[in-house]
Amino acid sequence: MQSGDKETHPRTERFRPGRVVLDTSLFVNPDARKYFGDTPTEALEGFLFLAAQVPILEFYMPPSIFRELLNFIQKDKLSGDLLVVLHQKPPNKYELTCPAFLLYELIEDIRERINKGLRVAESAVRGVSSKGEKVIIQDLRRKYREALREGIIDSKEDVDLILLARELDALLVTADQGVIKWAEKLGIKWLFPEKFRDYLLSSIKKARLLDIRI
Amino acid sequence: MQSGDKETHPRTERFRPGRVVLDTSLFVNPDARKYFGDTPTEALEGFLFLAAQVPILEFYMPPSIFRELLNFIQKDKLSGDLLVVLHQKPPNKYELTCPAFLLYELIEDIRERINKGLRVAESAVRGVSSKGEKVIIQDLRRKYREALREGIIDSKEDVDLILLARELDALLVTADQGVIKWAEKLGIKWLFPEKFRDYLLSSIKKARLLDIRI
Repeated sequence: MQSGDKETHPRTERFRPGRVVLDTSLFVNPDARKYFGDTPTEALEGFLFLAAQVPILEFYMPPSIFRELLNFIQKDKLSGDLLVVLHQKPPNKYELTCPAFLLYELIEDIRERINKGLRVAESAVRGVSSKGEKVIIQDLRRKYREALREGIIDSKEDVDLILLARELDALLVTADQGVIKWAEKLGIKWLFPEKFRDYLLSSIKKARLLDIRI
Repeated sequence: MQSGDKETHPRTERFRPGRVVLDTSLFVNPDARKYFGDTPTEALEGFLFLAAQVPILEFYMPPSIFRELLNFIQKDKLSGDLLVVLHQKPPNKYELTCPAFLLYELIEDIRERINKGLRVAESAVRGVSSKGEKVIIQDLRRKYREALREGIIDSKEDVDLILLARELDALLVTADQGVIKWAEKLGIKWLFPEKFRDYLLSSIKKARLLDIRI
């Protein structure tokens, strides 16, 4: 039955497009976006220009991440290609599951961070007499956020990225270390935004070769 | 095939024992244990005495929780019944899954707590000049722990309880509010330790009735 299918639809079988899930960092982070454009708006345009030429890939972004992106973009300059080329799809969070061992890792990680946060707070209290309240509070905020939030999945948006990539078996393009850490645990392919332009160019070449062969 | 099985083993089919997963609070928390005994050791003995008379129930405890319990117990006074009546079983954490929407709830919850923790730390820094370092640090520790850890699943042991109860489709006996909150989300039956002695006595009665009927 399956081999019969194959013979009837050889093109469909062979050309199931690869899927790519994009984080905002690709357009917002200056080091990442420079390969596509000088500003976030230009980078998005630059991406859309290339992406429209890659029939073997489909591009996705969770709506929550897209809303974040809109804060950095001049909306009036966006082309209509956006809606066709970059699909906004939320993950199916009520049907997806995650392996239970991840709960242990998440909770152990958070436990350690909470303890670290308390040590940061205590050392802030001890520093007041020598450095003064104002300096200490600024210092505290920075150190506390570093201790509790860096390198961790800490927002709905992060979970959206991970779950959408898992649902679609997609390549996840992100520079977020917390997200990458979880992608590794869950067997999700990922790519640094800096490499993404090359990835697109290579895919354009591959698409052309595949057309020739058929 | 299945109905054939039923006719061959009618007793086994009808008497699949109910399963119960126990938290330490049953023996350690003074309000909970008083129904079974005055000290943790006596409460455990009291429980074992009743539990051995309930053939329609099986009792489980994750090994991590049992290790916690051992800190409160006089080991030399424990009867051999313990190993037979109270099964130590870890959850199968590499095969179990949890619904993905729980990740969102956990991460949102933690995010709010982290912000609350920072506010606690800031207000501690601001209080140093009036209350003095020593008082403020004691205060900080208490308030910080309250803000970040109360009512939340915050340890491997908590996750063990939840997952074991889920795996065994068991009744979870616990007084931990964080654990109860998750049991509610995951459709796990739970019972306050204060009610557990009555539950056992009632089960003994039920077991006798069932014996009479067969």
